Amino acid sequence: MTLYLVENLGIAVFAITGVLAVRQQGVDVFGAVVLGVVTAIGGGTIRDTLLGIPIYWVRDFTYAWSAIGAALLAFFLVKRLQHTYQWLLYLDGLGAALFGITAAEKLLSLHFSEPVAVLMGLLTSIGGGIMRDTLAGRPSLLMSRELYATPILLGCTVYVVTGHFMNNFLSGLLAMTCAFGLRATAIYRHLEMPVWLSTQAESE
Amino acid sequence: MTLYLVENLGIAVFAITGVLAVRQQGVDVFGAVVLGVVTAIGGGTIRDTLLGIPIYWVRDFTYAWSAIGAALLAFFLVKRLQHTYQWLLYLDGLGAALFGITAAEKLLSLHFSEPVAVLMGLLTSIGGGIMRDTLAGRPSLLMSRELYATPILLGCTVYVVTGHFMNNFLSGLLAMTCAFGLRATAIYRHLEMPVWLSTQAESE
Amino acid sequence: MTLYLVENLGIAVFAITGVLAVRQQGVDVFGAVVLGVVTAIGGGTIRDTLLGIPIYWVRDFTYAWSAIGAALLAFFLVKRLQHTYQWLLYLDGLGAALFGITAAEKLLSLHFSEPVAVLMGLLTSIGGGIMRDTLAGRPSLLMSRELYATPILLGCTVYVVTGHFMNNFLSGLLAMTCAFGLRATAIYRHLEMPVWLSTQAESE
Repeated sequence: MTLYLVENLGIAVFAITGVLAVRQQGVDVFGAVVLGVVTAIGGGTIRDTLLGIPIYWVRDFTYAWSAIGAALLAFFLVKRLQHTYQWLLYLDGLGAALFGITAAEKLLSLHFSEPVAVLMGLLTSIGGGIMRDTLAGRPSLLMSRELYATPILLGCTVYVVTGHFMNNFLSGLLAMTCAFGLRATAIYRHLEMPVWLSTQAESE
Repeated sequence: MTLYLVENLGIAVFAITGVLAVRQQGVDVFGAVVLGVVTAIGGGTIRDTLLGIPIYWVRDFTYAWSAIGAALLAFFLVKRLQHTYQWLLYLDGLGAALFGITAAEKLLSLHFSEPVAVLMGLLTSIGGGIMRDTLAGRPSLLMSRELYATPILLGCTVYVVTGHFMNNFLSGLLAMTCAFGLRATAIYRHLEMPVWLSTQAESE
Repeated sequence: MTLYLVENLGIAVFAITGVLAVRQQGVDVFGAVVLGVVTAIGGGTIRDTLLGIPIYWVRDFTYAWSAIGAALLAFFLVKRLQHTYQWLLYLDGLGAALFGITAAEKLLSLHFSEPVAVLMGLLTSIGGGIMRDTLAGRPSLLMSRELYATPILLGCTVYVVTGHFMNNFLSGLLAMTCAFGLRATAIYRHLEMPVWLSTQAESE
């Protein structure tokens, strides 16, 4: 029950940050809501499709309502939400970590292999944002040096590896701490991927 | 039988408008045909994939032939079709409304919930065009204020809601009238989404 | 066993060319590896998803490791690989032909229709590269006049058609010769799609 609430809250946060991300480009309410909803439920949709299991929001449309409602709200309250954007970034990081790790957990419980669990956790977490950016013609996080996906990858890996020694709750907590800790530090200190792990754009 | 013909005609119209949409960008016949075919059958493909049912054109390749044939025709007759572009816009609007509403009907008959039926109707109708624009690097309708998707959303909603009071044929007719009426008016009068339902692109 | 090795080698080559294709845009190791992996396994992933069969790298993660390992290697050895880029182009063409034709073979053996086998062979072969370019915001091969997809289309068609007269091995060999022969000629002679099969980009 608590998890259900938290999941819907996470979806709502994703939908809100999704709308805020595209509002500067001049969109109408339809485009903004679609892109917000894609941000929120896109990653899980790709995951369920790839795994050949029923899409979670098709089975329970509450998730989709959370996304649609939050996106609508964000569109109309967009001016007021600007002040809270920095704060939303942290919430978004928390949501992304939570999404990734619970997805990894779900996959392990469905007896998928551990590497698949890590990969799908990552995809669940970042897939929606990448879809939004691709649809909106914006450079996605794949083309930036921001530390957004790496914390999730770390968290999912920690979860799967420590699951061998600890109980579920402890390894989940540890994974969340690692993922959110790294992401929060990256937001606070404007950390980027180090230069030796990046290539320079070439002027052609 | 009539529906089958109409469906294939709708696919052909979508493929033609798809080719016309990308021809100004300098493509070869392969790219143009692929993008035309994606426009025509992309939306239904996403829908069937998400629902975990066999893709309609894999089961019956006639649909794909209609798309391929029409796209090839459009590529080679492209000069002549320019004159009929305005006329094709109306046909496209009619096809989009038909696709969306018949998809919603199909989903209700497969016992999916009503919101899922509306959403999937919308996706069937606009998904192909969005895929084409994303693949072609063009801004998609999500980033414009054109009234293209809203009529479909209206039509599918009307269909699902009035289905409670009317027989199937009447509610379908009413839904088509609403969807195509709004779209045709939008084309004729160059209607756009009102300003209060849009954000301005910010100069950065 | 030999096929298994060759498949993994093909995936590795695709991952390497995928990383090389995006490195000039300024990416970090995470983005580069994701885009390399998408290039390598994206096409087969779309194919399996559309056909509703389990994704091949979910069943056997070795394929994914080949892609991840090769992409990582390519990222760190990128300077040295520049010299071999021309050579890699031929390998890539060979891999693309092999992927397409083995996919077509697999589909025929699963009793899909011949046009579906050709289409899915083509999609397996070029889908990953198109996904990479779309995600990276680059114009994909759909928007170029390069002879990349046409040889695959030719090869898959030859395979399916000659399968009626010849045994599997002979028609596969003939198809590979046609596909790779055309592609290699195109690379060597910088062949493009002829003008009458292309439209000009219009200055607007």
